[in-house]
Amino acid sequence: MKLLEDRIVKEGKVLSGNVLKVDGFLNHRLDIGLLDELGKELYRRFCKDGVNKILTVEASGIALASLCARYFQVPVLFAKKRKSANLGEDLYGADVASFTHGCVYRVVVEADFLSREDRVLLIDDFLADGNALRGLCEICRQAGAAVVGAGVAVEKGFQHGGDGLRASGLRVESLAIVDQMDPKTGIVFRSDL
Amino acid sequence: MKLLEDRIVKEGKVLSGNVLKVDGFLNHRLDIGLLDELGKELYRRFCKDGVNKILTVEASGIALASLCARYFQVPVLFAKKRKSANLGEDLYGADVASFTHGCVYRVVVEADFLSREDRVLLIDDFLADGNALRGLCEICRQAGAAVVGAGVAVEKGFQHGGDGLRASGLRVESLAIVDQMDPKTGIVFRSDL
Repeated sequence: MKLLEDRIVKEGKVLSGNVLKVDGFLNHRLDIGLLDELGKELYRRFCKDGVNKILTVEASGIALASLCARYFQVPVLFAKKRKSANLGEDLYGADVASFTHGCVYRVVVEADFLSREDRVLLIDDFLADGNALRGLCEICRQAGAAVVGAGVAVEKGFQHGGDGLRASGLRVESLAIVDQMDPKTGIVFRSDL
Repeated sequence: MKLLEDRIVKEGKVLSGNVLKVDGFLNHRLDIGLLDELGKELYRRFCKDGVNKILTVEASGIALASLCARYFQVPVLFAKKRKSANLGEDLYGADVASFTHGCVYRVVVEADFLSREDRVLLIDDFLADGNALRGLCEICRQAGAAVVGAGVAVEKGFQHGGDGLRASGLRVESLAIVDQMDPKTGIVFRSDL
């Protein structure tokens, strides 16, 4: 999506350690007008799939998920991060290794809020190794809910998490896929290749 | 706001220890249509105050802040929770005691994203002891930003955090104020008294 790619080029900072800093508009300071356009585009791509719930993970997925859900007119469920590995009987949960934070955390949702009647669209701001989305898929599996696909703002294609998820059969729609990035030479998008 | 009060009566659960569970629509499963109405109402109350930024704290304030910001057409900045008390030179931060989690955490924002040019509306889903809002006020003070007020979905009036903030001069607009609640006798709103 050109709107997002242009913004990444304009304001994104490529740091060492494969870090792409876009916290000026995507995950700290939120450009709500931009996120609303991204949400609308994800709606356009998934509007025929019978989505009745959007599932994301706190914290930075919530804004995009909420703005996107306005178009779908469906509720958002956000998985909560827990330090503890304890999983009560009334929770679905999965362990997620975080690329950004270099740790493993548990994401959980209350069992009351997800069921086999649900057709779930996963939403997240970033896709790198794919661990967060895999965790959300696992939560849906536990609930018996169908996952219709995943909508992502920025995918770091060179980490291949998205490719792995697609190979496993998940429909992943990323609005910008960064296939190469370098502090000196800049960013190359998959759409450029 | 009657829409919210009715929903709290219908679906809120009063638990022991002064816990009001509204996670079916406000802070785990999000009723986006409802939150959009709450955001619109907060816009109505603050639209003449020159707001150019909304500040909230992760995670459960983000959805309401984002939907509200659509009406204002301003960006959202969400303060991030850190375990560490370390505060870099490029961050503004404050310590916040959490009623819900029984701990103290630090909330921070990057200094680049808040300045003395800003007229900030604080938004949060819940107001109990008022510690989160006090932390956000402190962050704005460090940045030299003006705080025009705070918009809150549910205030637990009997914990008097909101009253203290109002007494200190902050304009606090809560869309539902629970002044009494009891697992047996139910909920009394300030608007009923």
